[in-house]
Amino acid sequence: MEQSFLAYLRGRTRSLPAVAVGIGDDAAVMDLPAGDAGIQQVACTDQIIDGVDFDSQSQPLASIGYKSIAINLSDIAAMGAAPTAALVTLALPADNATEIAGEVYEGILEACGQFGIAIAGGDLSTYDGPLAISVCLLGTVTDPWLRSGAAEGDVIFVTGSLGGSLLGRHLRPTPRVEFAKRLRQHAQVHAAIDVSDGFSLDLDRLLAASRVGAELDLECIPISDAAVKMSADSGRTPLQHAWSDGEDFELIFTVSESDAASIEKLSADELTVEITRVGTVVGRTGLWKRITGSKLERVFPQGYVHGETDA
Amino acid sequence: MEQSFLAYLRGRTRSLPAVAVGIGDDAAVMDLPAGDAGIQQVACTDQIIDGVDFDSQSQPLASIGYKSIAINLSDIAAMGAAPTAALVTLALPADNATEIAGEVYEGILEACGQFGIAIAGGDLSTYDGPLAISVCLLGTVTDPWLRSGAAEGDVIFVTGSLGGSLLGRHLRPTPRVEFAKRLRQHAQVHAAIDVSDGFSLDLDRLLAASRVGAELDLECIPISDAAVKMSADSGRTPLQHAWSDGEDFELIFTVSESDAASIEKLSADELTVEITRVGTVVGRTGLWKRITGSKLERVFPQGYVHGETDA
Repeated sequence: MEQSFLAYLRGRTRSLPAVAVGIGDDAAVMDLPAGDAGIQQVACTDQIIDGVDFDSQSQPLASIGYKSIAINLSDIAAMGAAPTAALVTLALPADNATEIAGEVYEGILEACGQFGIAIAGGDLSTYDGPLAISVCLLGTVTDPWLRSGAAEGDVIFVTGSLGGSLLGRHLRPTPRVEFAKRLRQHAQVHAAIDVSDGFSLDLDRLLAASRVGAELDLECIPISDAAVKMSADSGRTPLQHAWSDGEDFELIFTVSESDAASIEKLSADELTVEITRVGTVVGRTGLWKRITGSKLERVFPQGYVHGETDA
Repeated sequence: MEQSFLAYLRGRTRSLPAVAVGIGDDAAVMDLPAGDAGIQQVACTDQIIDGVDFDSQSQPLASIGYKSIAINLSDIAAMGAAPTAALVTLALPADNATEIAGEVYEGILEACGQFGIAIAGGDLSTYDGPLAISVCLLGTVTDPWLRSGAAEGDVIFVTGSLGGSLLGRHLRPTPRVEFAKRLRQHAQVHAAIDVSDGFSLDLDRLLAASRVGAELDLECIPISDAAVKMSADSGRTPLQHAWSDGEDFELIFTVSESDAASIEKLSADELTVEITRVGTVVGRTGLWKRITGSKLERVFPQGYVHGETDA
């Protein structure tokens, strides 16, 4: 229902006051009321539910709590923003509510401590249903990175390596908050998105928002060890895992060729993580695979399309 | 679990960055980064769940959507703040998810339109559980009204009339947003809280936060027509309903005696709603009933104590 409902909502919210960036990017961006030196506020929200987004039988509750913060931090990082405070809402199964809340909060507190964010408030309910965690994360930004800013000729980068997150990384992802902060010091990012539903699918969303396409060097896509490991049993290649697996929580971003050259000179230490040049933004829409000495071939995005919509 | 878990959380969040006003008031207050002319950001969140906070079998989904925004607006009003944007998260039963979302959003859009707030973002999930609506509401404030600011000698007021909300008013409450805006122009409010769990219970919370007590003129407490109607069948007096019924979403606030005299000269039209002087803040903690020509008598708060915690 995601896409059609979003379209309906966009139409229906037209008569309401608008924010600077509303439904359809990784996070919302709002102007601040006073003489603010260009600083804007960002806010995003993501909920995860037992049986849909995680499995409390096989995954530690503290890790799930950690993840509930981390996935929102990833959205904030994708805006090039700095997180400040979280509001945490829990819907708890009536049995063992206090014990569950305590364990979930262990992970929430760990993530908030690690990334220096406050817990500003929240809500707790007990009910006859599965554990659901909804986090609203606030932050600030100057000149946010939107999905829609990619321009023809831009170089496309991705952080880290991709695929196989389900083998474990997805529970303790590293949201690229510190990376985003450092990248801002070295380059003017034109567009960015985080990889939540699959590299190719999220790249396609960024390109669609920017009304452009991409020529990709598929052999350059950074493949994680976990993707290689998964491919042993899955009947799919490591590249297929990197191309379509969800929950990598890496960043895809585009910069000009000259900025690309600058940031490629930086070490992984300086940026906190490796970055890889995977292609170029082109005017023709769609994803295109570069094949040496021959024509371009169209490739198609693949990933996890779910009943959820990002802020 | 509410009170003990809140105490645990307050302890555990001490090592995290702090916000100006955190867990324990109607909404959180955060400083803005830049030269902001005293303007601060407020944020609150409240979730309502089918079978716990409402009944989708007997109540229209649009009204429930309206209510999900209104109860958060009431928290923002209780801070003396101006609402700006909402993030709306729905957990939808997998059957009929799109239809349910559409109906709920009718009421959400109506409330947002009426109060001039943007829908900045949100999240949608489908799952095997009851409809749950979680709203995070953002706003701005200068000099927020806290629960903790009541001072000895203050006059205690309440807006509107109290009790019997369950007969219908609770689904379409009028959050006192415009009232709060006008009150700011005429008085310096020392403390405020909204009546969500019962007049006496919420007043007691305000007093406890301020480490003071109150002498009340019980015969002055404004009783709604609905409270009178309910008392016909409930075996309780109209005053008992006004004293303890939840979901009135009126405001309790305290001001100095001189400000009290000023605002009592204003009409209900000028303030948008009647206000009633119900008592005085005293140094001795607890609620005390004034009996003409005799000693004070202690009275006890009553209301709805639930498994939820406000932001």
